[in-house]
Amino acid sequence: MSELNRVYNFSAGPSTMPLPVLEEAQKDMLNYHGTGMSVMEMSHRSKDYQAIIDAAEADLRDVMGIPDNYKVLFLQGGGFMQFSMVPLNLFRKSFKADYIVTGGWAEKAAKEAKKFGTVNVLASSKESTYSYIPKVDPANYTPDADYFYICYNNTLYGTEWQDKDLPQTGDVPLVADMSSNILSRKVDVSKFGLIFAGAQKNLGPAGVTIVIIREDLLGYADTTKTPILLDYKLHADNGSMFNTPPTYGIYMAGLMFKWIKSMGGVEEIQKINEAKAKLFYDTVDNSKLFKCPVAKEDRSNMNALFVTGDPELDKKFVAEAKAQGMVNLAGHRSVGGMRASMYNAMPMEGVEKLVKFMKEFEAANLK
Amino acid sequence: MSELNRVYNFSAGPSTMPLPVLEEAQKDMLNYHGTGMSVMEMSHRSKDYQAIIDAAEADLRDVMGIPDNYKVLFLQGGGFMQFSMVPLNLFRKSFKADYIVTGGWAEKAAKEAKKFGTVNVLASSKESTYSYIPKVDPANYTPDADYFYICYNNTLYGTEWQDKDLPQTGDVPLVADMSSNILSRKVDVSKFGLIFAGAQKNLGPAGVTIVIIREDLLGYADTTKTPILLDYKLHADNGSMFNTPPTYGIYMAGLMFKWIKSMGGVEEIQKINEAKAKLFYDTVDNSKLFKCPVAKEDRSNMNALFVTGDPELDKKFVAEAKAQGMVNLAGHRSVGGMRASMYNAMPMEGVEKLVKFMKEFEAANLK
Repeated sequence: MSELNRVYNFSAGPSTMPLPVLEEAQKDMLNYHGTGMSVMEMSHRSKDYQAIIDAAEADLRDVMGIPDNYKVLFLQGGGFMQFSMVPLNLFRKSFKADYIVTGGWAEKAAKEAKKFGTVNVLASSKESTYSYIPKVDPANYTPDADYFYICYNNTLYGTEWQDKDLPQTGDVPLVADMSSNILSRKVDVSKFGLIFAGAQKNLGPAGVTIVIIREDLLGYADTTKTPILLDYKLHADNGSMFNTPPTYGIYMAGLMFKWIKSMGGVEEIQKINEAKAKLFYDTVDNSKLFKCPVAKEDRSNMNALFVTGDPELDKKFVAEAKAQGMVNLAGHRSVGGMRASMYNAMPMEGVEKLVKFMKEFEAANLK
Repeated sequence: MSELNRVYNFSAGPSTMPLPVLEEAQKDMLNYHGTGMSVMEMSHRSKDYQAIIDAAEADLRDVMGIPDNYKVLFLQGGGFMQFSMVPLNLFRKSFKADYIVTGGWAEKAAKEAKKFGTVNVLASSKESTYSYIPKVDPANYTPDADYFYICYNNTLYGTEWQDKDLPQTGDVPLVADMSSNILSRKVDVSKFGLIFAGAQKNLGPAGVTIVIIREDLLGYADTTKTPILLDYKLHADNGSMFNTPPTYGIYMAGLMFKWIKSMGGVEEIQKINEAKAKLFYDTVDNSKLFKCPVAKEDRSNMNALFVTGDPELDKKFVAEAKAQGMVNLAGHRSVGGMRASMYNAMPMEGVEKLVKFMKEFEAANLK
């Protein structure tokens, strides 16, 4: 990387992308595969573009193991638009939903859903700055809820649902915001009614949102009063081409899927992610300077929080790391401290460099 | 262009972009201005990205002459999302609006607005396949309408409002969909309450929508039931950064604005567009084979429709033009015939090559 002077970018999103993906986009910028134009310039109704979006969907289905009875939609508006679309489409019988609030995004999702139905917040870890994932007794689930909502990985607070803890919701569709951990680990899609993810972490550039929805959940939006683009069925019926989709972002997401395949698929990516996370958290747990404020069993492989306990020293760490080419290590403005986001595209070398620097910084600054 | 084997792309959108813009994006793909990362990889909360969006807004204000009492928003969802957002935000007193239906997009906008209030379609040219812009006696305007809606340029049907014909709506805010002619001609923004445009014609890649709104029209969305992202005020209050914006698309739009400045601004661009349109329409009007189905006084400088009258011959023309490196000349699937879209980024040389070929084709095929 040195000749390009690229940094290790630990941003929580938009975030680092694999160099081969960017290089391919660069190569194709003026003339994509002999078409005489950039992908940006292509009519979304052209055969060339249809082949791009078809390949993106097929590759996503492949790497994620998406069953045939699920639709894949490429939408706009990010996670926030899903906070509205989920209730507008999934409230259909009782107009009740269960939410577990594990962070600011889940809280915002619950607040938005209240506009459209009854929201039962079964649990929240807000009182401890969302430092853990609350475990809820299934006896407390709302039996006739229209859906059950979780945020799978909490970008701001560094927690992540573990497979063994996922709510067993039976016939109630489980809805998951996977914006910050999609494709980072093997997931059994069939356990979910709906999965969504803003692209700007593991999937490519901001401006594309992936929705994976079980077909029986389509068709419940009230089309007499729902803003037209907020109806999943419209997009499902039109192959995400009812209106002009974010064509270039989908192309980039497609390159990301191909890159994952080239790495050996999600299984191999997961091993690397687990190794990166182990190296990082082991370093923190063996440190006399750094601490991780998150419950051990709920720690995220994607977003790792750490602090020295001294805000001035935290700032010094972030500044010195930046000078060494490791950037965006400051924690979210609402949390403080440090955060290292280690998405799929962050190579092991980046984490190795980070932990090496942490040890040097500790040696130099531990009083 | 020959060494790059780029084509002349007459697509109606997404559409051709200036080569210098694409070359700059290509150059910066792996490392933007020494930041060590692509613009796609930048946190939208970073100083580097803030500088990009600030420059994009400043340049747009400059080239378009946007008064200080207007907000500029960079949103997602394209024109279709605006079909919902306009009524959800501008219905505020009478819940009545006037629409002039000059094409399929205006028709769809009117249909969507009916979900949220009373829509008076003052006129429609649908009976003549939208081949002209209806002129409406101001005596028929709804005096207490909350807004008055037009589609400034009709991409599918090749018509465009002329300045002298623009509705004089007095205190009723005029709303214009300028998706396909924004920045192609000088416009007096102060005559409008709200202007919107999907980017994928004159502004850059699909996935960015520009909204220019007079400040006194902000704050009327019913936030107790409007999906959160559909409130203009939220975006205005947060500098289009309430949620993650389509960061790369905004960067590309910014490059487009800089390119317009490098060309001498909208005034100079308009002269070129008028010269391209004159060359094209003069050729058609002097042809014995080709006809333009659109009323002369309402013809669009952006999207020029033409037909031979023989669908088979039309197909032959499109195929032979493609073989000569002039692509996407087929008319919209709902209209047929041919359409040459001549947005800002289509150089005069492209139109010259097209009319030269039209004359050759006429000589070879006129019976």
